[in-house]
Amino acid sequence: MKVDGKDMRTIWLEPDGWSVGIIDQTALPHQFTTVRLSSVQDVARAIATMQVRGAPLIGATAAYGVALALRADASDEALERACTTLAATRPSAVNLKWALDEMVAVVRNRPREERLAAAYRRAAEICDEDVAINQAIGRHGANLIGAIAANRAGHPAQVLTHCNAGWLATVDFGTALAPIYVAHDRGAAVHVWVDETRPRNQGAALTAWELGQHGVPHTVIADNTGGHLMQHGMVDMVLVGADRVTADGDVCNKIGTYLKALAAKDNGVPFYVGLPSPTIDFSLSDGAAEIPIEQRTADEVATVTGRTVDGRVEKVRIVPEGSTVANYGFDVTPARLVSGLITERGVIEPRRDALAAAFAERAQAAR
Amino acid sequence: MKVDGKDMRTIWLEPDGWSVGIIDQTALPHQFTTVRLSSVQDVARAIATMQVRGAPLIGATAAYGVALALRADASDEALERACTTLAATRPSAVNLKWALDEMVAVVRNRPREERLAAAYRRAAEICDEDVAINQAIGRHGANLIGAIAANRAGHPAQVLTHCNAGWLATVDFGTALAPIYVAHDRGAAVHVWVDETRPRNQGAALTAWELGQHGVPHTVIADNTGGHLMQHGMVDMVLVGADRVTADGDVCNKIGTYLKALAAKDNGVPFYVGLPSPTIDFSLSDGAAEIPIEQRTADEVATVTGRTVDGRVEKVRIVPEGSTVANYGFDVTPARLVSGLITERGVIEPRRDALAAAFAERAQAAR
Repeated sequence: MKVDGKDMRTIWLEPDGWSVGIIDQTALPHQFTTVRLSSVQDVARAIATMQVRGAPLIGATAAYGVALALRADASDEALERACTTLAATRPSAVNLKWALDEMVAVVRNRPREERLAAAYRRAAEICDEDVAINQAIGRHGANLIGAIAANRAGHPAQVLTHCNAGWLATVDFGTALAPIYVAHDRGAAVHVWVDETRPRNQGAALTAWELGQHGVPHTVIADNTGGHLMQHGMVDMVLVGADRVTADGDVCNKIGTYLKALAAKDNGVPFYVGLPSPTIDFSLSDGAAEIPIEQRTADEVATVTGRTVDGRVEKVRIVPEGSTVANYGFDVTPARLVSGLITERGVIEPRRDALAAAFAERAQAAR
Repeated sequence: MKVDGKDMRTIWLEPDGWSVGIIDQTALPHQFTTVRLSSVQDVARAIATMQVRGAPLIGATAAYGVALALRADASDEALERACTTLAATRPSAVNLKWALDEMVAVVRNRPREERLAAAYRRAAEICDEDVAINQAIGRHGANLIGAIAANRAGHPAQVLTHCNAGWLATVDFGTALAPIYVAHDRGAAVHVWVDETRPRNQGAALTAWELGQHGVPHTVIADNTGGHLMQHGMVDMVLVGADRVTADGDVCNKIGTYLKALAAKDNGVPFYVGLPSPTIDFSLSDGAAEIPIEQRTADEVATVTGRTVDGRVEKVRIVPEGSTVANYGFDVTPARLVSGLITERGVIEPRRDALAAAFAERAQAAR
């Protein structure tokens, strides 16, 4: 996607051919800074401090982390050490684990002198595969948006999104936002309602920033607003990402997604989820009962970070001292509220048989 | 209610017998400051800058504003000027208009020398009437909470609230929070989930502060959280205030209320609204269609005000420059999602016949 009019990915090989560039996402939206990673320690720090975030991007960055580790020391011990270090940065990230396994599989049975090139090659492939998956999600979803736009007689299709499942969370295009980018690039008129997404404000900070950079019209709203908009016919489609989807189509995503799904149902607004198929966990069925919901630090709710009028970035506390705070990171939207799952293989109904048919190889492996 | 262990109201006559004391609510929760109002200009400024807010408290403060105006000049012209000034401070506040009409009715047909005493008397009555109404709401609602607590075998009754309809919004006790205070003071175990209530954070700033001061256990959560809590059986009742209720029982309240009502319905959690009966507008029926929703300044969504680690109060921007922002202040919860309206005359079903029967004199006057 574009930044300041130039095409960019969220991660790239630097011109030196070995070090890795990323965008420091903790500084967004107030500052656009890139960071050069030249060691596995650099990569571990970038993941742990959330300079990179989003499951696909974490996986891709970790893959390059293994390559950087092998550049310093191509031994089995160094490989193992690198994987242990990287796996500990975000222990619950499924993609991180997957990317490390991929790298080990490619490297382990090779002679030392071949390992480095193989690692860089596989890391680049992991990035390109992510982009290809997201482009496919984008094409399938853009057809839905295009159909709405075609019926709107010049008015833009109104899409509401929650959190950030955009290109910043992936290598490029994003998952939930890929259909929006593809539709926009095809010339469809699209306007996006961006939930600010408390407590971490990834909507206001990241989604608004990346849509703005790419030139997609959008409006930031408080998370409380979507129901009112849907009641008044101001939303044509809700489109969100997913952290995990069960074999029955229940969707675990950023806290607050379930509330938007309820409002969509109550107002006849279609509710779609954009996701790469590895997000589907065929070992789970009832999301609300089976998916443990991470409780995060109270500080995320009790404080807000932003930029002062004179340009300093400050953290301010909004909750009285002495008040208890709870911070649940995710919630589960039952499949009955989901209109469709937009995957790289098309739009799938959120039902066990439909998902198993579309991803037979994975559904069978989970038995 | 209590502040630092002492009983207080939100507005009081100072020991000098004529000037009026208020709490500066714009400084909460970071600072507890009282302000002395000694002229109608002081009162107009306090209302306009939201040092006092909440319909009942605005009305009570405006009433004292008329008294202070008459203290300087008891003429008809001064009375009219004062009402014009005060009415302009918050043009859409129904209670403000009502309180001014009350004051004019009491003063106008009296000789000048009697006006001042009559005005102070009526202002004090308006305050006491508000307290009496809220205590009645509190008693009726506390019975509901008590019944839940009795079934919880020692675990607290879990009540979720949105925004601030507490004693800070009234002269004392509050509307939605009155049942909680009464239940707590009766010895029932109650715990309150406090929605932070973006964009102005009245939940985190005001509700959490007043519950904390009175010693009611509570936990502040992001507005996105309630659905997850209800899905997991962690909420026994939702209890909110109202800005306006239609003759058919539709409830206009702070933006985001509707989303919580949907989650309550989806999870079989009772959803109650605490309100003084003047909030019912018998001239309206379909709330979503008929109640215009105020759009407020983008700044409220784009920025957050809080306290820095070193104690300064700062405003920080969280939305990228160049992103559009929308700020709808209220939404409408359809009567079908409301379990009951807790009024000073008891818990009323949100239906036209039930409301008309309970408030026959007002329902008939609206025909």
